[in-house]
Amino acid sequence: MTTISTAPRTCSVARSLEIIGEKWALLAVREVFLGNRRFDEMVRRTGAPRDTMTARLKTLVAAGVLERRPVSEHPPRFEYRLTQAGLDLYPVIVALMQWGDRYLLNDEEPPMVLTHHCGHELGAVTNCSSCGEAVLASDVRPTPRSGALIPPLD
Amino acid sequence: MTTISTAPRTCSVARSLEIIGEKWALLAVREVFLGNRRFDEMVRRTGAPRDTMTARLKTLVAAGVLERRPVSEHPPRFEYRLTQAGLDLYPVIVALMQWGDRYLLNDEEPPMVLTHHCGHELGAVTNCSSCGEAVLASDVRPTPRSGALIPPLD
Repeated sequence: MTTISTAPRTCSVARSLEIIGEKWALLAVREVFLGNRRFDEMVRRTGAPRDTMTARLKTLVAAGVLERRPVSEHPPRFEYRLTQAGLDLYPVIVALMQWGDRYLLNDEEPPMVLTHHCGHELGAVTNCSSCGEAVLASDVRPTPRSGALIPPLD
Repeated sequence: MTTISTAPRTCSVARSLEIIGEKWALLAVREVFLGNRRFDEMVRRTGAPRDTMTARLKTLVAAGVLERRPVSEHPPRFEYRLTQAGLDLYPVIVALMQWGDRYLLNDEEPPMVLTHHCGHELGAVTNCSSCGEAVLASDVRPTPRSGALIPPLD
């Protein structure tokens, strides 16, 4: 029996996007990965409006993605650091970057090169942790906990 | 010499987010990965406002992520299919889902289980395509084409 649900799907993608699914939020995280931890640097290197960046950083701190640390008292200055949850966003950032490099460059050179500590330019691949194979959507069967059936991707 | 740039960074992450960096756009892509290819299904399963979903689907089609195909003439009906560029967003979706499963469940069960064709529940890992090792931000050195130096992540 197939149950037709009329409700939006309960979904970890959707929940993640409530926190980081907005351009300026994810670009703020990108800047911290690039070592720019101060508010003014983040605004300058993302192009975000200051009040938008303020709001996004509040959300990211409240969600436990970034930590706000005092770095001086007079004048009061703060910097933002990635928590473990923030560091674990690296695959998201890398996947977005690679996708943009592949599809949105219009014959330009990629604006950023990532070099892995093995010495090679990073080409990140998503693998199955059990069998080690590359993960393709067509090789993955999604099953909602609700038990609804999802047809194979064709 | 360090050059202080006052301009927003030219960046493939930012460009990708111009296309898919909005909650409803990425959730529309999620639905097509789950086999829901009709507008009404996407609206129902994402909870997006209809006019927002219309706008996002137009952007995704114009960017070459989705293809809009007629499936009947009377009445005129369409469905959305993933292009190769769309299929290549799978690592982004999986990375977001795993991050949400790890950090945003509040002791619930994950709402969706992905089973890889090897028979195991999918735990996707991001590896370096050269050495095969797992990719950690601390093992990657980013170099902008502009030549500006970026300090190591600490």
